[in-house]
Amino acid sequence: FCCSVFFSSRNVQCLCVQQVQVKNPHLDTMEEDILYHFSLGTKTHNLPEMFGDIKFVCVGGSANRMRAFAQFIHQELQLPGNSEEIRDICEGTDRYCMYKVGPVLSISHGMGVPSISIMLHELIKLLHHAHCRDVVLFRIGTSGGVGLAPGTVVISSKAVDHSFHPQFEQVVLGKVITRSTELDEGLANELLQYSTELQDLPTVIGNTMCTHDFYEGQGRLDGALCSFSPEEKLEYLRKAHEAGVRNIEMESTVFAAMCRVCGLKAAVICVTLLNRFEGDQITTPHDVLVEYQQRPQVLVSHFIKKRLGLII
Amino acid sequence: FCCSVFFSSRNVQCLCVQQVQVKNPHLDTMEEDILYHFSLGTKTHNLPEMFGDIKFVCVGGSANRMRAFAQFIHQELQLPGNSEEIRDICEGTDRYCMYKVGPVLSISHGMGVPSISIMLHELIKLLHHAHCRDVVLFRIGTSGGVGLAPGTVVISSKAVDHSFHPQFEQVVLGKVITRSTELDEGLANELLQYSTELQDLPTVIGNTMCTHDFYEGQGRLDGALCSFSPEEKLEYLRKAHEAGVRNIEMESTVFAAMCRVCGLKAAVICVTLLNRFEGDQITTPHDVLVEYQQRPQVLVSHFIKKRLGLII
Repeated sequence: FCCSVFFSSRNVQCLCVQQVQVKNPHLDTMEEDILYHFSLGTKTHNLPEMFGDIKFVCVGGSANRMRAFAQFIHQELQLPGNSEEIRDICEGTDRYCMYKVGPVLSISHGMGVPSISIMLHELIKLLHHAHCRDVVLFRIGTSGGVGLAPGTVVISSKAVDHSFHPQFEQVVLGKVITRSTELDEGLANELLQYSTELQDLPTVIGNTMCTHDFYEGQGRLDGALCSFSPEEKLEYLRKAHEAGVRNIEMESTVFAAMCRVCGLKAAVICVTLLNRFEGDQITTPHDVLVEYQQRPQVLVSHFIKKRLGLII
Repeated sequence: FCCSVFFSSRNVQCLCVQQVQVKNPHLDTMEEDILYHFSLGTKTHNLPEMFGDIKFVCVGGSANRMRAFAQFIHQELQLPGNSEEIRDICEGTDRYCMYKVGPVLSISHGMGVPSISIMLHELIKLLHHAHCRDVVLFRIGTSGGVGLAPGTVVISSKAVDHSFHPQFEQVVLGKVITRSTELDEGLANELLQYSTELQDLPTVIGNTMCTHDFYEGQGRLDGALCSFSPEEKLEYLRKAHEAGVRNIEMESTVFAAMCRVCGLKAAVICVTLLNRFEGDQITTPHDVLVEYQQRPQVLVSHFIKKRLGLII
């Protein structure tokens, strides 16, 4: 399958055909593969039939937000059927939720590197078992901004760790190995270009710092534990800003690293909910936060419609 | 408040009165504290009135499981009202769910250290703001067993990292600090003793290894990425077993570390879903898994009823 099968009458660009690569020689020897946290499996489900036409995978932390995104993209692609009746494919478990809308898959991943990492292992195997090709992955999330007005969308040039290095440390059998967290430059630039075609979508490209903790790890003064001063916090944020960090979240390094290893084109697009130079608590009214959270969705939807030739 | 307010006619033991300690001097200077991921706050909610009587907090990964636990404990404590109508206190967000049943709070924490860490920061602040005293925390979860029959309940003597050390590495403003992950020995022994009073509850005390990844980090051969052989996997599991590790999960180190720092008595009680020496995939039928997952709940419920003097 290729995007053009779906939207054959449109001006579809589909230059390369690349299969999703797993990097595990043992998988071929397994009679069955149970994707436990999706409640799916190769014997119980026809994965090529269910997922073979997937071209775009959008992942985000919150289950409600990824359901809302699926409904939004259903309307944007003007697909038949009622977007309210969209079904959670992972309804056999509450670990993640998953919605399929034409060639788009929308999945929640919870909070933090370990949670998204489990999802990514099973997602990459799913795309592999389903023989998907030319898949683009997007993480659409929320983040703390570093020197940006709240509501700014940050497209990550790369994901960096707490020392501002573009690397992810993975423990394998008790030993630490390091993986690169560079993201696709062409994809980031394409997204930035598209953002200029949309209203009310202030967007920048910058480095995204990924931490394993929301409070101490991000230099917040309002956690249950805090051993540093406001001045030390600001000094750390200033150093981050000098290193090109424009926002802070909790999943981008492993997302970038795993997509790179498996040859998947990927982008991280997060809206900032506050400017961390000005505070730690998220005090913005709920309705404003809801509008902010739609911004990465609007940008990705625009990208998908462009790619599918629905808009020129 | 004290447990005896609730069950004053019973044989209640309440020997010490210890307030929940936050370790953050800045909190006192804040006019308002928004517990963002709970959708609660000190100005919008009367936390002492809502939570002041809490004595037992039970946390677990899955939202559905923690709802089921709340309903179960409601029946076990023979409280008035319909346990089916129990309300999610965090219904304003889908990050976590939270149920209150008499002196018991049941909260979900998602998967992995970062996810439970956000919840623990906000939980400890909640207990502090609510002036709770003598609170005991339990993590009731699922795990992979190391040399144990599936269905065995493991009470953690301590949580250990991927090198089998009882420590948790926390990044604070870009610097790594190390915290101890020893758990309360008396509480673990008390739980083990109670397990002998229950049917079909095979229970051991052992070390629990906490990893940041379900696949490569736990030596699984069935992830999207795998660079090691079955022999290397088994060698790592053997070393873990020799170091006293009896099960592997993904939250215990930060749970133990934060509870210790804040002076909270805490226990980790996880059932094993498989024996990792025998495989990686969870192939056990759904109904058997459901029964396994109830075992830590039954043990903690027994403990709570003992503490409240409902059984002798």
